[in-house]
Amino acid sequence: MLDFWFEFASTYSYPAAMRVERLAAAAGVAVRWRPFLLGPIFGAQGWTDSPFNLYPVKGKYMWRDLERICSREELPLHLPPLRFPQTGLKAARLALAGEAQGWTPAFVRAVYTANFARGLDIADDAVLADCLREAGADPDAAVAAANTPQNKTRLKTQTDEAAAHGLFGAPSFTVGDELFWGNDRLEEAVAWAAKDSL
Amino acid sequence: MLDFWFEFASTYSYPAAMRVERLAAAAGVAVRWRPFLLGPIFGAQGWTDSPFNLYPVKGKYMWRDLERICSREELPLHLPPLRFPQTGLKAARLALAGEAQGWTPAFVRAVYTANFARGLDIADDAVLADCLREAGADPDAAVAAANTPQNKTRLKTQTDEAAAHGLFGAPSFTVGDELFWGNDRLEEAVAWAAKDSL
Repeated sequence: MLDFWFEFASTYSYPAAMRVERLAAAAGVAVRWRPFLLGPIFGAQGWTDSPFNLYPVKGKYMWRDLERICSREELPLHLPPLRFPQTGLKAARLALAGEAQGWTPAFVRAVYTANFARGLDIADDAVLADCLREAGADPDAAVAAANTPQNKTRLKTQTDEAAAHGLFGAPSFTVGDELFWGNDRLEEAVAWAAKDSL
Repeated sequence: MLDFWFEFASTYSYPAAMRVERLAAAAGVAVRWRPFLLGPIFGAQGWTDSPFNLYPVKGKYMWRDLERICSREELPLHLPPLRFPQTGLKAARLALAGEAQGWTPAFVRAVYTANFARGLDIADDAVLADCLREAGADPDAAVAAANTPQNKTRLKTQTDEAAAHGLFGAPSFTVGDELFWGNDRLEEAVAWAAKDSL
């Protein structure tokens, strides 16, 4: 079992979200999709914005690096971004609410595609409704499920759990207590999970 | 041609220094070893210590990640470290001075091994003298060459050049204007350099 921790504002979570099921399936590993919020975790480090904005030299590199990764993976990338980071709170609540009905992975991929491949605003209700329909979900029912107090609390709890695992960025992967950070650790995390399940 | 930028205080530079010549040789790529100092570059970001110390959650992850990398590469690793970061100024000046005589790569590997595999103080003159001898250099002559005003200035110039390339961490690799950051980008950088030289 591989836990895939992602945040909709995170650029490197985009290629990870597009790759994780293919790689995990090839290794016979099940994936649990774990949306969480980086805001509170960055806040605990004293960051009030993405480190890629706080440190522009690092940000400039990240966009070029992401461009190379997407080119290699044949993933479309829309640059410059509409804005960065985008607000992923609504999308994260929806992704969590979709778990019971199984449309979370398809919805998550649709949202990352809207953000990074199509340059759309993922806090926009119409954009999210399109992503939900694309994933086979009923938008009205999904939004209602996302906005229950129970679901909102669950996202907070999941973010606390991420912090307890020592997560400090996204994407991250956990296999039991073993933590892997970054899209570039996906292969290693999948191999660890495969070994772990023997 | 691949430029390999490293800093002796940098943990991930250790596996990169041990791997770079093997991977580059297999791809028919020449390597230029470029010691530089992260201190001034971190200072420009407002950091007065390693980010791995400033952000302990990230630091804890880094040591575990390094442990996994070294295990996979069959590189010895001495944990906990003697101290982190160590002061690499003397070693960097020596590495630069060795370029003319060709002992830089062997010396650099010896210093990383002293630091990360053997838990020795790489600012200690006796430790550095052993590393120089291991690399086939004469310690007295090497130290004299390292401490000339010209060589000291050259290290500053090389650090300025690193900053001009957009470097913000180590190890980094450049192929012309293309920048790659991290030991985990070594394979990609070598492939880029091989493609570039066709």
